[in-house]
Amino acid sequence: MVEFTVQNLNGEEVERLRGVFGPFTDSVRELIDATIRTEVDADVVATAKAEIDAITARLRSAQLDGPFGVRLSEGGQMPWGNPVIGLRNPIAPPLVMRRSADGGIHADFHLGAAYEGPPGHVHGGVSALILDHVLGEAASSAQNPRLTGTISMRYLRTTPLGDLHTEARIVRTEGVKTFAVGHIADADGVTVEAEGVFITPKWAR
Amino acid sequence: MVEFTVQNLNGEEVERLRGVFGPFTDSVRELIDATIRTEVDADVVATAKAEIDAITARLRSAQLDGPFGVRLSEGGQMPWGNPVIGLRNPIAPPLVMRRSADGGIHADFHLGAAYEGPPGHVHGGVSALILDHVLGEAASSAQNPRLTGTISMRYLRTTPLGDLHTEARIVRTEGVKTFAVGHIADADGVTVEAEGVFITPKWAR
Repeated sequence: MVEFTVQNLNGEEVERLRGVFGPFTDSVRELIDATIRTEVDADVVATAKAEIDAITARLRSAQLDGPFGVRLSEGGQMPWGNPVIGLRNPIAPPLVMRRSADGGIHADFHLGAAYEGPPGHVHGGVSALILDHVLGEAASSAQNPRLTGTISMRYLRTTPLGDLHTEARIVRTEGVKTFAVGHIADADGVTVEAEGVFITPKWAR
Repeated sequence: MVEFTVQNLNGEEVERLRGVFGPFTDSVRELIDATIRTEVDADVVATAKAEIDAITARLRSAQLDGPFGVRLSEGGQMPWGNPVIGLRNPIAPPLVMRRSADGGIHADFHLGAAYEGPPGHVHGGVSALILDHVLGEAASSAQNPRLTGTISMRYLRTTPLGDLHTEARIVRTEGVKTFAVGHIADADGVTVEAEGVFITPKWAR
């Protein structure tokens, strides 16, 4: 059973928290990139480690017992811990999804060193992570959450790190099954295609 | 074209760098978890942000121009920037893959708050990220790198956050195509199955 946390936060409080944690999470994203690319000496790394451990201890002095979950507040869902779109998850690039007039969704995003597989290129699994999320979001709505049943990825060529685009849309719905397609593209066109079947979970039927 | 960086590091130097960057990256992983779960006040977050920005600036005072790449040294590949197995990538859980006597590979790993999709459960795309990597590694060897051509995931049930297992193996090879299968499991059994076709890239034929 999947449980959602309901918080009685009003829109103003949600915006205040967004202002506190959005910039902080962006700073941790920069630190991730620097962790991979730095060439400083061992003593500089050791000092940085001690400082980070002290910061983490202060942050942990008051923290949730478990993961962030998906919170519901005035104004809708707060999936802030999500590894693709989460405002508070430094692993997330993050993608900012927009809904098109035709009901599909799309996002422009940037992938740097933290998402590398083949040298200079996006890890195929990172493309799969993003496409799973984007197709799932295209297939879902606030009233009808849907989870991935099956999904297939087809890699047309390796995707370069840098500025990228993704989009997805529903093809059709049959009962509890919703069929969706989408892709990732760079400036020269589509690099990875995906199609999936998304299922309305039992607890949401 | 995918280019590998060749470094003339001997085994001792690789071990020294492992000792410097392994523990540091683990500290950044803890910071990521704390970033998602902390409930401290805004002023504590603001102070932490300023400190992290200063640490990042010091790390960036000497850094690679681009992403880490895959480096070749005495003792083999150093895919330290990889988002699934990378010693220096805080996004990576990281998985430590082991090769079985029959040629398949397997890993036990742990996923916490940073990998959450449905509340308390692994994001379906994170499972896809991991399976893409694990099947690709099963399909490859140092002599025969192979990249994902197509891959399909089948979600049997939602995967709980926590201790997990993954394994993959080659089913057959036909020319430049290698067929592999694998899965992710929790203590109660398989949660996600995958099958894929992996291609020997032109530059490695």
